[in-house]
Order: sequence, then C-alpha cells, then structure tokens
Amino acid sequence: TGVAMMKFKSPPVNSLSLEFLTEFSINLEKLENNRACRGVIITSAVPKIFSSGLDITEMCGKSVEHYAEFWRAVQEMWLRLYGSGMVTVAAVNGSSPAGGCLVALSCDYRIMAENPKFSIGLNEAQLGIVAPFWFKDTFVNVVGHRIAERSLQLGSLHPAPEAHKLGLVDELVPEDKLMEKAAAVMKQWLALPDHARQLTKTMMRKAVLDRLVAHREEDIKNFITFVSKESIQKSLRMYMEMLKKRKS
Amino acid sequence: TGVAMMKFKSPPVNSLSLEFLTEFSINLEKLENNRACRGVIITSAVPKIFSSGLDITEMCGKSVEHYAEFWRAVQEMWLRLYGSGMVTVAAVNGSSPAGGCLVALSCDYRIMAENPKFSIGLNEAQLGIVAPFWFKDTFVNVVGHRIAERSLQLGSLHPAPEAHKLGLVDELVPEDKLMEKAAAVMKQWLALPDHARQLTKTMMRKAVLDRLVAHREEDIKNFITFVSKESIQKSLRMYMEMLKKRKS
Amino acid sequence: TGVAMMKFKSPPVNSLSLEFLTEFSINLEKLENNRACRGVIITSAVPKIFSSGLDITEMCGKSVEHYAEFWRAVQEMWLRLYGSGMVTVAAVNGSSPAGGCLVALSCDYRIMAENPKFSIGLNEAQLGIVAPFWFKDTFVNVVGHRIAERSLQLGSLHPAPEAHKLGLVDELVPEDKLMEKAAAVMKQWLALPDHARQLTKTMMRKAVLDRLVAHREEDIKNFITFVSKESIQKSLRMYMEMLKKRKS
Repeated sequence: TGVAMMKFKSPPVNSLSLEFLTEFSINLEKLENNRACRGVIITSAVPKIFSSGLDITEMCGKSVEHYAEFWRAVQEMWLRLYGSGMVTVAAVNGSSPAGGCLVALSCDYRIMAENPKFSIGLNEAQLGIVAPFWFKDTFVNVVGHRIAERSLQLGSLHPAPEAHKLGLVDELVPEDKLMEKAAAVMKQWLALPDHARQLTKTMMRKAVLDRLVAHREEDIKNFITFVSKESIQKSLRMYMEMLKKRKS
Repeated sequence: TGVAMMKFKSPPVNSLSLEFLTEFSINLEKLENNRACRGVIITSAVPKIFSSGLDITEMCGKSVEHYAEFWRAVQEMWLRLYGSGMVTVAAVNGSSPAGGCLVALSCDYRIMAENPKFSIGLNEAQLGIVAPFWFKDTFVNVVGHRIAERSLQLGSLHPAPEAHKLGLVDELVPEDKLMEKAAAVMKQWLALPDHARQLTKTMMRKAVLDRLVAHREEDIKNFITFVSKESIQKSLRMYMEMLKKRKS
Repeated sequence: TGVAMMKFKSPPVNSLSLEFLTEFSINLEKLENNRACRGVIITSAVPKIFSSGLDITEMCGKSVEHYAEFWRAVQEMWLRLYGSGMVTVAAVNGSSPAGGCLVALSCDYRIMAENPKFSIGLNEAQLGIVAPFWFKDTFVNVVGHRIAERSLQLGSLHPAPEAHKLGLVDELVPEDKLMEKAAAVMKQWLALPDHARQLTKTMMRKAVLDRLVAHREEDIKNFITFVSKESIQKSLRMYMEMLKKRKS
C-alpha cells in the first residue's frame, strides 16, 4: 500500500534518547529513499505513552561533547520529520509531553485517542527550561501565535479534548479506532499526486526549516550553555527524582 | 452611491482567460481612478459558478511567450485587486475553485450563498499543480497557517458551510439575499473615512504584495518552467478531457 | 505575594496623557526592578472605563516638540509593558478603546467584565486616523491576521461577548468576580519558575518589540507628519467636540 508504520517501543516511556533519535532518523531516511513508500504512520507500542519527550538522562551530568551530539540528533530528527516528503500521520495513543509533542506537531495530521487522561503539550517551562525556537515555530504553525504564547509560558499539558479544541490535534477517536482512522486519513492524503503535494508542503514549511538550518551550530551552542548551568542541572535532577518517586 | 458592481459573465464557467483577466484589470484600474467610486461588489452572472479559476487552455500547448503573457496578467489582476484602495466585497453566488477562490480571498469581505452544493478552495494540488506562493500567502492571511497547510496539500474544495466554519468566507446567506447583504456590508465599510481605511488596509497587506512585486519576473519564469514540463502538460490535458466528458 | 496592583485613576476616562504615560512607565520600571515583585494586575478605579486611550488633547494644536515627546512616551509605555518580565494580567472592568485596548493587548492575559455595554477595540479608523504598525503587530499576535485586518479597517469596538469570541480577551467574568479571577489567574502563571517563563515570553514577543526599537525615530517622525496635517487636526477637533457634547 506504500504506507509504513513506525511503532515507538522503548519502555517504559519512549524517551527520546540519543540512541532512539538516531534510529528514528535512520529509519525516516530509509523510508524517504524508498520510492515504494509514500506515507508513514507514527504511533507507540507502549501503553498510555506516545513519547515522554527528550531523555533527561542525556542532559544531566554529561560532557559538553555529549550534549552537542545529543542536540544535533534532536535537530536531525526534526529536520527529517518536519521536512519529510512522505505523508506523516501521528496516531497519538497516549500522553505526549515536550519532545513527544514535537514529534506529533511535525506530522501532517494528528489523531489522538479521546481519553482525557492522555495529555499533550510543550511543557518545558514547567521543568524550568525553555522550548527551542524551532519547537515554538512548529507549534505556532499549528495553533497560531496566541495559543502558543499562552501554552508555552504556562508549560501546559492539554488533556486530549482540550488539545483538540485548541487545534493541537486534528481529530479525536476512541482508542480502538485509532489505527483504522489513521489508515483512512492516510488513504485520503495519498489520493493526491505526490509531486504537487510535496512541493506544497515544502512551500508551507520551508521558512521554519530554513531558520534552524541557518542557525544550527548556534542553536547547539545555546543548548550546551543552557544545559551546563548549575541551576538547570539542579532543576533536571529534581525532576528526575520526582519521576523516580512517582514510578515507585 | 459610490459603489460599482462587477458581474463576471463569461459562460460557461467564468474561466480566467487572458482576455478575461485583461478586461478585469482594466476595469479595476478605471474604477480605482474614478474618485466617485469607493467600493466594488464582485459577483457572477453565470448560474452556479462564481469563477472556475485560471483558464487551462491558456496553459496547454501554447508558446513560452504566451505563458509569460498569461501569467503576468494573473499577477496583474491580483496585485490590483488585493491592493485595491476601494472596499471590495465578493458575493460568491456559485462554486469558486482555484483562481476563482483567489479572487474571493483577495477581497475585503466574502459572502457566500449558503448552498452546500457550492464549494470553494485552492484545489491546485488535485490537478497535480502547485498554488503559487502568493496564492498561499493570501490564503494564510485569511485562514491562518494550519488550515492553509492542510487545505492546500489536500487540494480541498470546501462546501459553503465548511468554508464558513474555516473562516474562508465571512458569512453565508440564502442565495436570494446575497446582493442585499453585499450592499449592506458595503455600506458598513463605507461608513469609515476612506483615507484611514486605505492606509490600514495597506498596512495589513503590504508585506504580501511586496513579496510578489519583488519576485515577479522570477515567478513568471517558474511558472513557464513548471507548465512546460511534459508531465504537467499531460496532467492538464487529462483534466480538460475529464471536464469535457463531465459536460457531455 | 509578589503581586502588585495598578489601578488607573485619572477621571473622567483614564486618558493616556503625557503625564499619565510617564507615571505609568516609571511605575512599571520600579516594579520591574523590584525583585520581590513577580506580577502586576492592571485595572481601573474609574467606573465603566478601563482606559479611553491616548489623550487627544495631546495631539491637538500642540508643537512638533510636544508631539515628539508625547509619542515617545506612548512607545516607552508599550515597550515596557509588552516586554515586561513580570506576569501582566489586565482586569478590564470597563470600556477600552484604542490605546486602552493596546494596554490590555500588551498583557499576558485579559479578563473582562461580562457586561455587553463595555466594549474594546482598536477603533482608530473611526476617528480618521491609523493605528501604528506596532499596535497592529500586537493585535495580530493576539487575534491573528484576518480578524485584525477586518477589525482595524472597520475601527470596530467589540462588546465584551464578541471580544471574547474573537479571542481579543481570554475570559469573561461577572464584574464582581473580576479581581478574584485576576488573582487566581496570576497565581496560576506564578506557579511557573520565572526564568523559564520570561525567556519563553521574550521568544514570543521579541520580533515585534525589536521592530519598533529598530524604527523608533522613524515612527515618531511619521506620527508628527501625520498629526500635523490640517485634515487630521480637523478630524480630531470634531471628535473632541462630539465627546464634549456627549458629556453634557
């Protein structure tokens, strides 16, 4: 059918570790280069979680070289996904904070399980950190400036119904209909000739993609400076402690 | 009353041919230079069709010089209409795909007959072609980035009720009230002093207008290169065949 | 609690005179430099009016030097408020045209008394004048391009329920619950760490702030040229006469 399925399977919470991101990018590249593949549905094999976002252990107590390598991998994943020539559909079958939300925002269409216990959002500010400008640009392109400004400042995690109301996801369906719906949406998007659709997509996303490409090294330096601060390291350690306690 | 009425009357479907576009631009220019004229209502004299958009016969099997002349005429029409100092109200009394939609989008206010059989949208992608960047810019200025991205990639033609919900048209009225409503809206807009209203309009639209002015020759070259491709010529011929069959 | 309250008290209508603006900016600066202060709620002590906007007497029959000083004070107020590191909540307890609307738009969150007799909007065009580009930019960042284009051209004053529907204000509450609600919203915003919230706010607003900073002197010159025109002076005098008659 020309449609690939990517199922995130990195328990317990599909954290976007360096290894995960690298594999994700390689798989996207392979599909992109496979002319038989026209679309990809992205979902999770882990119950209740789409992806918990960037792996905080990669940002804590590591070397400057490691931070640079990690951040470049985050950028690479986004450049490939947001700029993909394939039709990309996110079947969000669980919560999706921070980097997990970015993955969904970077697709062409977002369907979410209509479970109000699942939430999605760029909640970086809650952790005392700031979403990078290209996370913000991607968010603004989906929900507009005002909703993005408020949601980013509050670090909001929006329950599925609210996310739908804000336009953060395009559609809600019962969890057991999610894959069926994703396939139907994919079919609708693939009914269009690839070439015209791809050029149109590029026209819509190029300005935001180019902005990161033009400032990529600067963005890595900023990340390193930011994450190396003792205050930020402390925030992240506290957050990890909280997560560990919650788990046990 | 200072209000002109332009009724498109080029059966069967008000195609925007080179001749039509040239006459349209000349008439806009005349009205613009007529100090007694403060507003123009644009509608169709052809039943069920506002305008079917660019005339495909102008893009099929013609010379490079013809393509250039045609495209310059499309640009000219849009520059005059989107940048008009007059109040421009579209009374959309029929379907309005592609270039027809652009005409409506370029006005200050869009009223559409509430007939769900009438649809409107930039459906270029359905034909295997890509809406030019300034069609896209005009669309984004009306419906925002996300709705434009999705609608352009799918080449959607939105039935009137959906078009209203998306903000693509401002208001729906029963077909027999359309002209009455257009006149009432015009009166409301003309209650403002022209000078302040015009400066405000320029402030809102200048960035998008300037972008085409700055890239006009390049845009013509792009159009020629694109439309001269054998694959595109084939798509357009197939589309014309389909239209002919539908008619008979 | 780290929250300051600013109550506009300049009867009869809280006009933004040179004196008022200067005091407003000084107070904002003091709060900004007071590390104990993390947020400010802005409201009015005058019944039925939040602020009537720029004081027209400052723009009528005065010297070029006065116009320059006045305009610089308007700019200064906006640069401080829109760029404030504090959480800023507008408790809009009355009508708020023109410059009064700008004050509300420049806050992080707008709560309005749900009285349909209170209206808000950038109605400059009604007076025959044009909102400056940075009023427009601030407005677009809140309501998007299309709503701003229409509202600015018509110089609309939106009754509270309509303002809420358009996204011009975030929330409506009964007038006697306004301060309570403002305090609750402030508490929610202050639950976030200041540093991450401030950097996020800067990321969202910097482009629009920088645009005025880069064109500040040019903007002052434009204002002087515009306001010095006899036609504009006449419009403003007529408007003042009308206000006086209405009062008596």
